[in-house]
Amino acid sequence: MNLILLEENDFSAPQRVTLRDRRFQHLLATGQLQTGKPLKIGIINGRIGSGTIIVFDEQSLDLEIELHQAPPPPLPVTLLLALPRPKMLKRVLQGVTSLGVKQIYLINSYRVEKSFWGSPLLQTEKLREQLLLGLEQARDTILPQVHLRKRFKPFVEDELPGLCKGTTALVAHPTADRLGALQPNRPTTLAIGPEGGFIPYEINKLAECGFTAISLGERILRVETAVPALLSRLLPG
Amino acid sequence: MNLILLEENDFSAPQRVTLRDRRFQHLLATGQLQTGKPLKIGIINGRIGSGTIIVFDEQSLDLEIELHQAPPPPLPVTLLLALPRPKMLKRVLQGVTSLGVKQIYLINSYRVEKSFWGSPLLQTEKLREQLLLGLEQARDTILPQVHLRKRFKPFVEDELPGLCKGTTALVAHPTADRLGALQPNRPTTLAIGPEGGFIPYEINKLAECGFTAISLGERILRVETAVPALLSRLLPG
Repeated sequence: MNLILLEENDFSAPQRVTLRDRRFQHLLATGQLQTGKPLKIGIINGRIGSGTIIVFDEQSLDLEIELHQAPPPPLPVTLLLALPRPKMLKRVLQGVTSLGVKQIYLINSYRVEKSFWGSPLLQTEKLREQLLLGLEQARDTILPQVHLRKRFKPFVEDELPGLCKGTTALVAHPTADRLGALQPNRPTTLAIGPEGGFIPYEINKLAECGFTAISLGERILRVETAVPALLSRLLPG
Repeated sequence: MNLILLEENDFSAPQRVTLRDRRFQHLLATGQLQTGKPLKIGIINGRIGSGTIIVFDEQSLDLEIELHQAPPPPLPVTLLLALPRPKMLKRVLQGVTSLGVKQIYLINSYRVEKSFWGSPLLQTEKLREQLLLGLEQARDTILPQVHLRKRFKPFVEDELPGLCKGTTALVAHPTADRLGALQPNRPTTLAIGPEGGFIPYEINKLAECGFTAISLGERILRVETAVPALLSRLLPG
């Protein structure tokens, strides 16, 4: 936890918050419960600053806070990710969030196992937990939006043309040429398939929508490796 | 398992192998035990090709193999990685291997917990298991070499100058400027610190050795995210 994220209902006064939950436990467990101790804080979807512990007891602490900084700039990308298996989804969501992605579409694909869509992890509150962990890691405050799209065809035909308008639209596909089209800071819509890749029908549908195929080379990477490897190419040089 | 890796003692004849272990179980579990079925195979530290199932029973299978391809080119990098916590080490080793790194130095740093060095995962056989998983994932055959260096100072003073000679020597450090020095295909020695980063003494020692600091930006990333994000910048453009 490199940043303590605050919500509106933590506030007891304009510059004062009371913490009781997981965040209190974390500070307790890591020996940071000391009066006067400065802590990095941020408001969810707001600014970043510092907090000072004013009082604490065995169940809660009060912080006086000051906000003096904008969160880091977002990565200019809309990520379309074939729904990974639940165990991997947690890590991938945290990683993607820590890299600054703000628009995440979890989409269906022929090679996504149907059962994945039934995972409790896809409940709004559970998704939010993973996003918060990613923000806390990266010292960011802006919550990504996660959109679930269980049907590939209507998503690609009806919604995607509007989404990718004005962006560089790319799909990671093992048989493609190199990475040239993935450029730092360029607004990008990036589609990443499931283990085993998108099927030809899906690649064709994406191509009709203006997507160009790119590849990290002949090695086949796990989603959790491919995602940061691809997103890294969008970071300022 | 995108590739079945074969060892010398699997061979019963020059082009024939018998499989009994984990690899047999995997093919059984994934419904691939069919006579005539072609499979991607590779020889550890050797060539890649295809195998055909000739016979099988409940405990083993025989493959006739043909080798017709070199493994993918290695990534021209020597990776120095502050020893991660054991749970993360597994994933990081698999990921690093799947990206084509062949020289991995797990090094000490002030912020590496001493207990990590006692992990059973650091035994040669256990390390090898993770490397094999990474190779199978990426369809590669060349086993990375993992070197354990439990003392930072003698490593950096006595061994590192020779190691990084003739390469671009870079250390990932949050306060540094951007990534400019990390260029595709350039022989590189890349040092990545522990969660919390190298301490100033260590950064100074690396600087004396010719290392330049680079950064992925103001976000703080977990090692498992930072490593593929950094290595990706070395892939051909």
